[in-house]
Amino acid sequence: MKSVTIQSPGTIANLVCGFDVLGLALHDPYDTIALRLTEKPEVKIINEDDYDLPTDPQKNVSGVVLISIMERLNNNCGFEMISHKKIKPGSGIGSSAASAAGVAVAANQLLGNIFTKEELVQFAMNGEKLASGVKHADNIAPCIYGGITLVRCIHPLDIVAIPAPHLFVTVVHPQIEVKTADARQILRKEIQLKDAIRQWGNVAGLVSGFFKNDYELISRSLEDVVIEPLRSILIPGFEEVKKGSKETGALGGGISGSGPSIFMLSKDEATAKQVATVMQQVYEQLGIAYHVYVTTINQQGVAVVG
Amino acid sequence: MKSVTIQSPGTIANLVCGFDVLGLALHDPYDTIALRLTEKPEVKIINEDDYDLPTDPQKNVSGVVLISIMERLNNNCGFEMISHKKIKPGSGIGSSAASAAGVAVAANQLLGNIFTKEELVQFAMNGEKLASGVKHADNIAPCIYGGITLVRCIHPLDIVAIPAPHLFVTVVHPQIEVKTADARQILRKEIQLKDAIRQWGNVAGLVSGFFKNDYELISRSLEDVVIEPLRSILIPGFEEVKKGSKETGALGGGISGSGPSIFMLSKDEATAKQVATVMQQVYEQLGIAYHVYVTTINQQGVAVVG
Repeated sequence: MKSVTIQSPGTIANLVCGFDVLGLALHDPYDTIALRLTEKPEVKIINEDDYDLPTDPQKNVSGVVLISIMERLNNNCGFEMISHKKIKPGSGIGSSAASAAGVAVAANQLLGNIFTKEELVQFAMNGEKLASGVKHADNIAPCIYGGITLVRCIHPLDIVAIPAPHLFVTVVHPQIEVKTADARQILRKEIQLKDAIRQWGNVAGLVSGFFKNDYELISRSLEDVVIEPLRSILIPGFEEVKKGSKETGALGGGISGSGPSIFMLSKDEATAKQVATVMQQVYEQLGIAYHVYVTTINQQGVAVVG
Repeated sequence: MKSVTIQSPGTIANLVCGFDVLGLALHDPYDTIALRLTEKPEVKIINEDDYDLPTDPQKNVSGVVLISIMERLNNNCGFEMISHKKIKPGSGIGSSAASAAGVAVAANQLLGNIFTKEELVQFAMNGEKLASGVKHADNIAPCIYGGITLVRCIHPLDIVAIPAPHLFVTVVHPQIEVKTADARQILRKEIQLKDAIRQWGNVAGLVSGFFKNDYELISRSLEDVVIEPLRSILIPGFEEVKKGSKETGALGGGISGSGPSIFMLSKDEATAKQVATVMQQVYEQLGIAYHVYVTTINQQGVAVVG
């Protein structure tokens, strides 16, 4: 039977002021998934990495996505998947989204591209539901569409592709655990109207900056007065990384997803590399193991490579 | 001494989801102001309309703007102003902003354009302070820049010009009084985080729609879940106007400024005129006097006409 290999990228959701709505896809890190179409209506999962993820398809992020696709096709086919993850689960760089979106795109390729991108997002959201309890699309959307995406609304789903200037992204993943439950619980159900206004002023500025290729406007708009002040408390070194990165020339940045990874955007590669050095220094000093990526925005999203 | 005549347009602030940050300038209605440069450091005000506005420059919106400009120039000149307002004070269509921005642009023209647009906004905000107690720029900015503007931030002032597709605007001014104090008091100091997220998703969608010339996206994003549900209570006929206008083909709209005027955006003139008919019918039935404008977005802002 037919098989396909895809690369599914890491993504940054909760793009500073654009909490829950703006996200972007990265070139690095990415997962590699090989998917084979089979005749028997079953999902078989083989993990070729060290993350010990479940192989029971009902308990596996990719598995539930493939099951939902099988069900749409009246169970007249099955899938066999070999997964090689490089995006560490719990890093805040969209590990579950890469698994979910990756198999959705791969399955669609095997089936002759019968589904729209929006349908693929719908399938992939089943994986996010399993991973976090909530059907959200803020990592799935940039993973499938590439570039920078706006999830304007979830019900009904409304995804808007936003053009982005060439930007370098430096991401540091300090190897600590931030429990999603903690990251959620620390948020307040109510916020000040004046903070909300400042936030949507910044969201409008950030989106305008992306459309206008206006790096200064992007930089001024990369401010989060609602979520970051609360969640950054959970990430040791956050303030030092942010301050040091901006002093070194980064346009700005913040928490990737719900953390613990931190990302910074830069106009050029030299600055992005200096930002990486700043991040390294902070976590060396704190004695926390870390991983740093210097990469760019991935305009394509999930890519079929074989 | 030199003199100049300007037309200063009405403006719509609080553009639906863009409360406090997004506004646009109209072609109609507009005020006409003639300004003359004099040698004596005084401001003289002549009102040629029926609104009985103060002629004491310290108590007049245009007056305080001219005084602030005189002071910047070490009081080495004065101004004589003849004002002919067509934008009714208290209408919610930026009457005070037209007075404030109009004289700022006129004075700058007389002085050889020595000030930037941003400086003119700063001068004009003194007029808004007098009118409403708060230095705000959400009407001033579109009045001076034209088109659609974002006031990303007030301190420091950050105004972003946003390109707009060709849009028709229908505005109805029901001749009732909504006290600014009431319109403010009805707002809550705290809002639900989930509503704030929906609002900034819509703001991002609306701005993207403007940049992309995507009328459908503009229409979907013209939704206000924070301010309108509270303030629309103060405007009789609001729901009927909104529902009828959208059924007739309007893209959407909402409260103009803090009301009582209501505006609707349409793709073409025929729809904009049908929307006007809907508005007329609503206020005829309610027995409330009204005025309706069918106009377009004014890309220029305050215009020197003589």
